[in-house]
Amino acid sequence: MRIFGIDPGSHRTGYGCIDSDGSRHRLVVCGTIAAPAGAAFPDRLAAIHDRLQALLARHRPDCVAVEDVFHARNVRSALMLGHARGVALLAATEAGLPVVAYSPAVIKQAVVGYGRAEKRQVQQMVRLLLGLDAPPSPHDVADALAVAICHLHSRLPDGTTLGGRVPARRVRSWRQYRP
Amino acid sequence: MRIFGIDPGSHRTGYGCIDSDGSRHRLVVCGTIAAPAGAAFPDRLAAIHDRLQALLARHRPDCVAVEDVFHARNVRSALMLGHARGVALLAATEAGLPVVAYSPAVIKQAVVGYGRAEKRQVQQMVRLLLGLDAPPSPHDVADALAVAICHLHSRLPDGTTLGGRVPARRVRSWRQYRP
Repeated sequence: MRIFGIDPGSHRTGYGCIDSDGSRHRLVVCGTIAAPAGAAFPDRLAAIHDRLQALLARHRPDCVAVEDVFHARNVRSALMLGHARGVALLAATEAGLPVVAYSPAVIKQAVVGYGRAEKRQVQQMVRLLLGLDAPPSPHDVADALAVAICHLHSRLPDGTTLGGRVPARRVRSWRQYRP
Repeated sequence: MRIFGIDPGSHRTGYGCIDSDGSRHRLVVCGTIAAPAGAAFPDRLAAIHDRLQALLARHRPDCVAVEDVFHARNVRSALMLGHARGVALLAATEAGLPVVAYSPAVIKQAVVGYGRAEKRQVQQMVRLLLGLDAPPSPHDVADALAVAICHLHSRLPDGTTLGGRVPARRVRSWRQYRP
């Protein structure tokens, strides 16, 4: 099972792809997408979309996982984030992939075992679970890997578990999926 | 000069395409894009993107015009709107088209002559300026046509005017464009 996690952002989008045999996870690829400095906003969106499209075509995951978003600093941040998240979801759908979304608390619960864990704890647990030498950095990469791990540790809509520790209390399958 | 206006929305996206010889405008096409009821959110985004992509390929405008967004009812509305607007901007960029954005006040000023005009006044002026039998409906269509007319009535970054009445006080060209 191969899961591709995305943490979209209008300035920087983190991604991380993980293979799992049900109990052990292996990092396939991770990184960030940043549009060229000074690029016009539509071109920045195209950069996110095109890069994700290429990564999904290359690594051929079974599923794309993203964080559910409910909050933002303000309306403006929410608008910016929405644009980036929109083109990321589009890239997943165009690749014919199911999209699953988990709330931040469920992701932290699944990865750290505590729904209010701090960013640093998430980074450290991602490092441990994937057997990495150092915590994934920046945060966007760790967050993308965390949502992928969360999906691996979560119950599927059909009741089975992909593997791992904590079944998510709340999963939205791509069929039910609303942002 | 052919302008394609878009009024993105996660539930319904209005669009309208206008030809102008510099003084007189002619409606080419207008309508709304609504995803099938019950469709998953990523599929709704794909419907907006794919339909706009097809319309832009078919009608081959010189430019795409959208409303600048600063406000939303709340963070959740802003997020939803951002997703839809993101895939709309992406469709324009993929078609190789410049994108211009105008604030709501500038659009109303350009179309009605009053920056705080009401929706009904905008609809009526769009009807008059395009010589339509009835005001375009729903609002999303009128708003898409209004932003296209606004661009026709506005000064271009190089100082020339595309045609019409009120030069916009504030134009963001696609080069400077930030949402």
